[in-house]
Amino acid sequence: MNAGLNRVYPTGHEARMAVRRGEHRAPTAGIAPGYVQANLAILPKAQADDFFRFCQFNPKPCPLLAASEPGDPRLPTLGEDVDIRTDIPRYRLWQHGKLQAEVSDLKDVWRDDLVAFLIGCSFSFEEALVEDGIRLRHIDQGTNVPMYRTNIATRPAGPFHGPLVVSMRPLKPADAIRAVQITSRFPSVHGAPVHIGKPEMIGIRDINKPDYGDPVEVKDDELPVFWACGVTPQSVIAAMKPEFSITHAPGYMLVTDLKNSRLAIL
Amino acid sequence: MNAGLNRVYPTGHEARMAVRRGEHRAPTAGIAPGYVQANLAILPKAQADDFFRFCQFNPKPCPLLAASEPGDPRLPTLGEDVDIRTDIPRYRLWQHGKLQAEVSDLKDVWRDDLVAFLIGCSFSFEEALVEDGIRLRHIDQGTNVPMYRTNIATRPAGPFHGPLVVSMRPLKPADAIRAVQITSRFPSVHGAPVHIGKPEMIGIRDINKPDYGDPVEVKDDELPVFWACGVTPQSVIAAMKPEFSITHAPGYMLVTDLKNSRLAIL
Repeated sequence: MNAGLNRVYPTGHEARMAVRRGEHRAPTAGIAPGYVQANLAILPKAQADDFFRFCQFNPKPCPLLAASEPGDPRLPTLGEDVDIRTDIPRYRLWQHGKLQAEVSDLKDVWRDDLVAFLIGCSFSFEEALVEDGIRLRHIDQGTNVPMYRTNIATRPAGPFHGPLVVSMRPLKPADAIRAVQITSRFPSVHGAPVHIGKPEMIGIRDINKPDYGDPVEVKDDELPVFWACGVTPQSVIAAMKPEFSITHAPGYMLVTDLKNSRLAIL
Repeated sequence: MNAGLNRVYPTGHEARMAVRRGEHRAPTAGIAPGYVQANLAILPKAQADDFFRFCQFNPKPCPLLAASEPGDPRLPTLGEDVDIRTDIPRYRLWQHGKLQAEVSDLKDVWRDDLVAFLIGCSFSFEEALVEDGIRLRHIDQGTNVPMYRTNIATRPAGPFHGPLVVSMRPLKPADAIRAVQITSRFPSVHGAPVHIGKPEMIGIRDINKPDYGDPVEVKDDELPVFWACGVTPQSVIAAMKPEFSITHAPGYMLVTDLKNSRLAIL
């Protein structure tokens, strides 16, 4: 993904309208600076109640920003006119855990029993880190953040269970301390790191071989810092193999009307 | 030092009165749980203005809780009846940077030009860590925390200059993250760590050989976490070799009427 080629919109609403009109079909990183973007998971009502509990049990990887009423594509707390069927540039359709198709809207597949879950995304806290002067290597490289399956179990809910997935950002020790302070202020977008240094302690065998995303170098004067990652719920849903589910395509998020700064608790 | 043998007093005031009456002559760790204890440095007025600036320039190692008027032994913001000449169990008298004597009061040496500086102490944040369930090895061992001179320079003020001294506590990564959060709430008692992991980056050659205090083991599943230390001002004063100065003896602090919890900014 190369966010540098994207047009930048002054508000989340304008970015979202560009997506809805089909004018923006690229990844959404950086297209509306200051505005919250969200991960998407859509499940039938039959699985949604358990997934709701899964999010509540695992708030660090699954910080739930909003959920729709069954069959209702609106998410008024994220933006008055949000329509989850049209406002994301690229969706993935899954059947029994297998990717069936990537589509640019959900008009043909929407059902009366679907519940949309919008989950906080690290873009929000990354913006706060960068604004504080902390360099993030995957952003400098224009690549996806490296992500790893860990040996830390999530707390299961009904059929949903599986390992915590973490993202990793290499930081100098003083920046790592500052990053703990900054991200602690953002509990609704994964919050403070879950681990620092010593990848082997959380079951990561080779830091240079992430399970998702792209590798980044960890230099001698840096510590790898690990945050709970929104890929966790996607991986848990894939493992549970529901009859039907929908997610956003990685990097193609819902841009909301919420300001990142308003997610800060302090 | 062995705090376990000390009597415990219900308030800082009662502990301080026991010191003043000569009933308590031991180190002060743990004698008034919940109450702020402070490091002491006393300098003649001729050096005090520069030292004031040194504290302001270096708030992490030298968080100034209070300073007296020249010649005035009272510190009303720390406790209405504090008399710095009598309320610490053991003082050290220095001349031109050399230790001259240890005494149990300052009645014979007090001068009209002396200024007392009371500096925040890690006891306050350690209490918050322990209350949160974080084990601190030097406390479990009943030893002094290990301290190291670093290659980090303090910001000089007049004749006062020298390296930052840090204290070290080994913590599991998740506890290290939590410790950053907790100690960030206590900027007036050294605040967040200044470094984590990688001792060599701050000029520490052998973690097992502290420059002050006692060594503690750093286990394979732990990171050494480093905080700015109140020994920094003592070391800077010793290097500057003022004509006359007074400090507390290590571990023998001023117990104040302030509650540790009231130092938390959030």
